Amino acid sequence: MQYTSLVTGGAGFIGSHVVTHLIQPGHTVVVLDDLSGGFQENIHPKAIFKQGSITDTSLVNSLFETYAFDYVYHLAAYAAEGLSHFIRKFNYQNNLIGSINLINASVNHNIKCFVFTSSIAVYGDQELPLKEAQKPQPEDPYGIAKYAVELDLENAQKLFGLNYIIFRPHNVYGPHQNIGDKYRNVVGIFMNQLLKKKSLTVFGDGNQSRAFTYIDDVAPYMANSPAFAKAYNQTFNIGSDLPTTVNELAHEIASVMKTEAHIHHLEQREEVVHAYSDHAKFKAIFNPTPEVPLSKGLAKMANWVTTHGARESSTFENIEITKNLPESWQ
Amino acid sequence: MQYTSLVTGGAGFIGSHVVTHLIQPGHTVVVLDDLSGGFQENIHPKAIFKQGSITDTSLVNSLFETYAFDYVYHLAAYAAEGLSHFIRKFNYQNNLIGSINLINASVNHNIKCFVFTSSIAVYGDQELPLKEAQKPQPEDPYGIAKYAVELDLENAQKLFGLNYIIFRPHNVYGPHQNIGDKYRNVVGIFMNQLLKKKSLTVFGDGNQSRAFTYIDDVAPYMANSPAFAKAYNQTFNIGSDLPTTVNELAHEIASVMKTEAHIHHLEQREEVVHAYSDHAKFKAIFNPTPEVPLSKGLAKMANWVTTHGARESSTFENIEITKNLPESWQ
Ligand SMILES: NC(=O)c1ccc[n+]([C@@H]2O[C@H](COP(=O)([O-])OP(=O)(O)OC[C@H]3O[C@@H](n4cnc5c(N)ncnc54)[C@H](O)[C@@H]3O)[C@@H](O)[C@H]2O)c1
Ligand SMILES: NC(=O)c1ccc[n+]([C@@H]2O[C@H](COP(=O)([O-])OP(=O)(O)OC[C@H]3O[C@@H](n4cnc5c(N)ncnc54)[C@H](O)[C@@H]3O)[C@@H](O)[C@H]2O)c1
Repeated sequence: MQYTSLVTGGAGFIGSHVVTHLIQPGHTVVVLDDLSGGFQENIHPKAIFKQGSITDTSLVNSLFETYAFDYVYHLAAYAAEGLSHFIRKFNYQNNLIGSINLINASVNHNIKCFVFTSSIAVYGDQELPLKEAQKPQPEDPYGIAKYAVELDLENAQKLFGLNYIIFRPHNVYGPHQNIGDKYRNVVGIFMNQLLKKKSLTVFGDGNQSRAFTYIDDVAPYMANSPAFAKAYNQTFNIGSDLPTTVNELAHEIASVMKTEAHIHHLEQREEVVHAYSDHAKFKAIFNPTPEVPLSKGLAKMANWVTTHGARESSTFENIEITKNLPESWQ
Repeated sequence: MQYTSLVTGGAGFIGSHVVTHLIQPGHTVVVLDDLSGGFQENIHPKAIFKQGSITDTSLVNSLFETYAFDYVYHLAAYAAEGLSHFIRKFNYQNNLIGSINLINASVNHNIKCFVFTSSIAVYGDQELPLKEAQKPQPEDPYGIAKYAVELDLENAQKLFGLNYIIFRPHNVYGPHQNIGDKYRNVVGIFMNQLLKKKSLTVFGDGNQSRAFTYIDDVAPYMANSPAFAKAYNQTFNIGSDLPTTVNELAHEIASVMKTEAHIHHLEQREEVVHAYSDHAKFKAIFNPTPEVPLSKGLAKMANWVTTHGARESSTFENIEITKNLPESWQ
């Protein structure tokens, strides 16, 4: 069988890797990306690229009419969790309304499966490790929008038979990541700071922990997921099992970048202190290979960023609320 | 103290009653309503009326700048729960993005309390009676949007100190209700059908039940709620304790309209079969008077609709998904 897939956010970090795994002789892959956070150079040369936004209803509908997609991989989002408090309207418009355009079109065009990249952010501050059976209790607008899309998919499944697979990744890093966005992706931020010979900025004491996940432990499984019938209409945590504190991460990164870490502590911000999740459900169905160790994954990414150089961090233009905005973001 | 309040949806059914309870010498009440579902004649003559949409960010911001509101009562929404499956984008745009504009402005202008009308629809199909301690599991886009707004308010409270009170009413009826909307408000639909000497249309067998609530058991408590410090940053079920089946309702209504009910059963649609909620939390704080009995409330409403006459039901123009749309809605 030869399939036609849509990958939204395919010029972004995870999306571009998903595209790589989908590109095979005879298959067609269409990338829809507005390049707000992604890069032309990330787009696979064999993919059909359409520059535009998922919030553009008529563009979305016309793509579905033109290509009769079998699968939709929906990764387009602005994933700046901490900033989402201050850009609430933009967050819901981009991440929720954009997703609804895709769900509507997927129902109307009877696609086979909708693969959605949600996030561990839906859980909020709960007992660890986070499990799929726990009821989400998101604590920031980014997580609320992701959870609303999850609920909408469940509902569209019940009423219209739209199949979906939901992944909740966390703290993915690797080549193609946007290291020039000061609002998100601590691995990229640290590498960018080191390339610019700056000290590493850490919110609070740096003892907050996350399980950093190399891209190869995520993207191929997402790409192949529609082949797993048992995964249909299910939700999966996906990613590394091993939490690392932000301080430890800083030192690991300095080490692979062959330099030293000078840490500059900033005022603590509103965020979940520890977060790691259980992957038993994912493993039972996808039977993944052992995860890439942090030092190895970081070395691969360091190699890529060193070749590509530092990026200038731009400032988000339309902040909606400036109250309590961390100083370094003003 | 003299207060300035904003009532969104103040030309609508519940909103117009809330306005009535807020209008007092020295106080200022501003109504923002786009008249999509409300009526000019519902607007209290002493209120300042601004016609426009809560989705219009600059209009919302300019109102907050002009009036320096103390309180915001947010009731504007398109509350067609069953139809929301088929108008997903409109639903989130109107009911969620519109609400976010108000939350942003409320944070930026430091209002004293944000009173939000959510809905029993956030619960979904759960053990009865529904209690506030149960985790919501909404099963339609209308309920998902309401729940997302609830979560966003909780989050805005934590991060910015915005006080809120959330009410989850159910099946409210009474004078000022739009009886010409065929997509919602079964009490109004039945009365309109009787005025037009038509038979009463019931989805499925009519044994589905709801606890129908007279407007006077809701509106005054919502209007006065900011005076109850213990209600701040809390969520309350509000409404009648007594479930009635749709069949029983049909006969009660025919009786107060002094005619007979001819019931025409339509194909069952996707909806929760039984729904009634526990009001212990509400009663403990608001100490309400005994509820208005169904027959008495229906008689008052029948009196109003008989004076005002039947309304023509218009068809919602921009259906986004037509698959599985109930025939009577096509
Ligand atoms: N990286 C992580 O650790 C992580 C963790 C959990 C979830 N996710 C989710 O995975 C997905 C991909 O994230 P990523 O890390 O690759 O981020 P990314 O910014 O590299 O990729 C997102 C892509 O979406 C595009 N995009 C954004 N808004 C768009 C719009 N309105 N229309 C079209 N394109 C748009 C951007 O230009 C970018 O190319 C996102 O949905 C994100 O929420 C990522
Ligand atoms: N009636 C009920 O049984 C019930 C139950 C639970 C919750 N609610 C909620 O109570 C609120 C009021 O409902 P109602 O029964 O009075 O309905 P209604 O339709 O009579 O009132 C809603 C009002 O909001 C206005 N409106 C809608 N979208 C708007 C927009 N974008 N900008 C400005 N105004 C807009 C309409 O014109 C209307 O006047 C709604 O939020 C509804 O979801 C009602």
